[in-house]
Amino acid sequence: MSDQAAEPQKKQKQQNQQNQQKGQQQKGGGKQDERRITPRAEDYSRWYLDVVREAQLADHSAVRGCMVIRPNGYAIWEKMQRELDARFKATGHVNAYFPLFIPVSFLSKEAQHVEGFAKECAVVTHHRLRAKSDGSGVEVDPESKLEEPLIVRPTSETIIWSAYKEWIQSYRDLPILINQWANVVRWEMRTRLFLRTAEFLWQEGHTAHETEKEALEETHLMLEVYRDFAENVMAVPVIRGAKTPGERFAGALESLSIEAMMQDGRALQAGTSHYLGQNFARAFDVTFQNREGKRELVYATSWGVSTRLIGALIMTHSDDTGLIIPPKLATTHVVIVPIYKTDEEKARVYTEADAVEAELKAQGLGVVIDKREGLAPGAKYYDWESKGVPLRIEIGPKDLENGSLCVARRFVIEIPGEDEKAQRSRKKAFLPRAEALAKIKTILDEMQKDLFQRALNFRAKKTRVINTLEEYEKFFKEEGGGFAWVHWAGTPEEEEVIAKKYQTSIRNAPLDGQFPEGGEGAGPCLFTGRPSARRVVMAESY
Amino acid sequence: MSDQAAEPQKKQKQQNQQNQQKGQQQKGGGKQDERRITPRAEDYSRWYLDVVREAQLADHSAVRGCMVIRPNGYAIWEKMQRELDARFKATGHVNAYFPLFIPVSFLSKEAQHVEGFAKECAVVTHHRLRAKSDGSGVEVDPESKLEEPLIVRPTSETIIWSAYKEWIQSYRDLPILINQWANVVRWEMRTRLFLRTAEFLWQEGHTAHETEKEALEETHLMLEVYRDFAENVMAVPVIRGAKTPGERFAGALESLSIEAMMQDGRALQAGTSHYLGQNFARAFDVTFQNREGKRELVYATSWGVSTRLIGALIMTHSDDTGLIIPPKLATTHVVIVPIYKTDEEKARVYTEADAVEAELKAQGLGVVIDKREGLAPGAKYYDWESKGVPLRIEIGPKDLENGSLCVARRFVIEIPGEDEKAQRSRKKAFLPRAEALAKIKTILDEMQKDLFQRALNFRAKKTRVINTLEEYEKFFKEEGGGFAWVHWAGTPEEEEVIAKKYQTSIRNAPLDGQFPEGGEGAGPCLFTGRPSARRVVMAESY
Repeated sequence: MSDQAAEPQKKQKQQNQQNQQKGQQQKGGGKQDERRITPRAEDYSRWYLDVVREAQLADHSAVRGCMVIRPNGYAIWEKMQRELDARFKATGHVNAYFPLFIPVSFLSKEAQHVEGFAKECAVVTHHRLRAKSDGSGVEVDPESKLEEPLIVRPTSETIIWSAYKEWIQSYRDLPILINQWANVVRWEMRTRLFLRTAEFLWQEGHTAHETEKEALEETHLMLEVYRDFAENVMAVPVIRGAKTPGERFAGALESLSIEAMMQDGRALQAGTSHYLGQNFARAFDVTFQNREGKRELVYATSWGVSTRLIGALIMTHSDDTGLIIPPKLATTHVVIVPIYKTDEEKARVYTEADAVEAELKAQGLGVVIDKREGLAPGAKYYDWESKGVPLRIEIGPKDLENGSLCVARRFVIEIPGEDEKAQRSRKKAFLPRAEALAKIKTILDEMQKDLFQRALNFRAKKTRVINTLEEYEKFFKEEGGGFAWVHWAGTPEEEEVIAKKYQTSIRNAPLDGQFPEGGEGAGPCLFTGRPSARRVVMAESY
Repeated sequence: MSDQAAEPQKKQKQQNQQNQQKGQQQKGGGKQDERRITPRAEDYSRWYLDVVREAQLADHSAVRGCMVIRPNGYAIWEKMQRELDARFKATGHVNAYFPLFIPVSFLSKEAQHVEGFAKECAVVTHHRLRAKSDGSGVEVDPESKLEEPLIVRPTSETIIWSAYKEWIQSYRDLPILINQWANVVRWEMRTRLFLRTAEFLWQEGHTAHETEKEALEETHLMLEVYRDFAENVMAVPVIRGAKTPGERFAGALESLSIEAMMQDGRALQAGTSHYLGQNFARAFDVTFQNREGKRELVYATSWGVSTRLIGALIMTHSDDTGLIIPPKLATTHVVIVPIYKTDEEKARVYTEADAVEAELKAQGLGVVIDKREGLAPGAKYYDWESKGVPLRIEIGPKDLENGSLCVARRFVIEIPGEDEKAQRSRKKAFLPRAEALAKIKTILDEMQKDLFQRALNFRAKKTRVINTLEEYEKFFKEEGGGFAWVHWAGTPEEEEVIAKKYQTSIRNAPLDGQFPEGGEGAGPCLFTGRPSARRVVMAESY
């Protein structure tokens, strides 16, 4: 039984009832309202949680800040993993697996690193429980205290570099191009499903090189891999650039990021790639005999993306009906909804549905037939739409008569100049059977491109090249904000002051080739007046 | 750069030097001896560690009992995951992800379960570190003590069933067929790379059903999935059967296992599938409205295999030259070794090597050309053989002249009646180029079947139907042991006594269709004389 049919609606009802009891405004009565998705314009944060709930992507768990990734959400992660992993392998990387635990003393070896991570990690201090004397359960057994506490990895540089020390003696042992898929824990204060959770899943690449040049090339190569994945698979436009010194990864010499714009205009950091120089090699004494026979410290990079990308996907594409999944990341591409009144009609419609399913599966597509009893077609449409399935095929007696299929798209984007009638028949097309089946993949490709274009258009509308402080304040306080391209030549301290004052941050200093019209070239820093060679992107962010 | 060429030999040299210092007997001098694999007949335990080391599968890490799975080892795990996951999906399961942490109080809810696992888990008691006052590093911040300690999951029943409670209200919500791929931690006292580590990777399936019948069917279905994987992908013969009450999973009503025989005759439990009845549903108050409108407790199963399977694979097939990987789990199927004396020969040989590589890759095979400089062909042969690569193609000037390729198999099995010359030309065949390329896949299939047959033959030789105590003692003390099929009708207490006395254990009570000649039917218990309906398998074990 497919996960998408198996999950109950009652929890959603309970949650909505709880919401009603908490006094949140809801229209009264009716099943539809209990599963209502708050419109984005009404409350964007609640909209996001409603979309996640209706699409059954994740739940909060019994453990603070930790989520349960439900089958529908995990299916997206699996597809992302497969796409990313293929790209990692294609660029010469291999996977390995390092320990979950890191001795506390290891974390201390790289000074900036421990500064950055010591404040928020899960610490293991004992290794056994014992029965409570009152028989009411179990408790920590004090006799099992560890000699040295262990932390649960917040990121794996320290445990990995201590292993690399054993593996590297000469330039012949380089480069090491290793990635790991793993869970990490950072004891976050504020958490948000997918966007920021105490435990999250990710991949972390850790590479070791002979030269700075090669390490820097790797840093940029992986950023480009991330861009390609974000734009061509997730359909999410991103800006590649360098983080400011104050925002660098703790222990890095340079941090690059890809930044995406969510539908509330806020930025979401979608991935990072770091040039670590020789910092970790120095901290862990990892040297190699170079080609001239001299001992040198190794050059390092690290790079990662996480389940946060699912949050980016949800926020970028979903609408007030619910989730929208780009076809390249969908497990189910087509849901078939049979329509019938009598048992005789049902039998004929089911036969056709099975045949269509088989033909589409033979094309390599993911297909589900919604055969649930006692649920009206309209309710089924809404159910699958809220779950983000790209296409719906409706099959009823009329379609059998006409030898046609009704193909309904989850969404259409605005085409300038297109009249409403034309748009409607793009959204829901009645096509001859053979033509419909032959066109499904083309339609899905079109929808994938449409999603990217729509996101690009949206970002363009909320992108501004800004040259005065008044404009800047007005942009964020009165015009809904977005990405502000401004000149910057301040110090990290000044950066913090500005961030606090405007509740915005410098997302990155974009690399060449991404500057909007009128945004190229030098100019005076918006906040300090000092000369700046190129603009940075500032925005409110997650 | 492929992982198999990148890893250095120096650590191995260092370890061997350490071994020599520790006084272990090694032949003196020479590079070959520093990387020597202890023969199985000399010291089986050391042989296993040597194989793992030479094939660069895993290392001990800086954390007690935890291993680093190196790229070569992880590549095997990835292939296993892909094969298993496809089978899980084919039987209607979907993947999800539940939290790493479990509140201590959750563990206590199921009485037998906490008994089983409380003794050996990693306990998180704090969530922050602070700088030591002497500036020498960081320490646990006492201010960050958690209200309720968390344990790192030793298995996820408790956290999963607390989530299922939210998801299940009626029979329409059933069955839930969920699996998760994750890491778990059990604070083991004695650890062995892959076979028993504190942290290990696994998959755990947790299903919820309307009826006991359906849950029992699922329990058996998954055991059969495991058997199919073990025998048809890993080429490891297994015996499916029921564990004794004393050996059941803590909280289960029935535990089924697949048991494999390693080359020292000892048994290795390769996978388990448990029928949990309503125990966890009761402990977590998970009920559903059944089809008759009555409230019932849900019926549950759980099943899992882990990175222990890699240990089973190593131990079952490897020889004194090193690792042997069954073709179905190999990432590299063919290594091409170019042979040349002059630069002119090198150029011609490399051209042919590139062409052969391309043609084999086009067939979907994994291929590597060993272009390392300064390493004699013989050393390359040994290197790739110790890493378990199934086939080697040698290309030298003579082969170019003859339009042929030399195809060498990693191993051949004994064919009764075959003379030595014939066996040698099976192991290393000189074939016309086109024929060689056309035959590679067939040869790999043959080798896959050969591995399974060899393991079957070995197990058969070390399997005995035993009817007297004298035979039993002689079998294990003088004849090298193996699988003893004996009658059993003892109590769990008697089972423990026997286990201590003979250092053997009851592996399982095999299901129908697997009994050896003379082993079917009833008889008196070997140890107590009471009537027994069917034999069990007893063996020394890991």
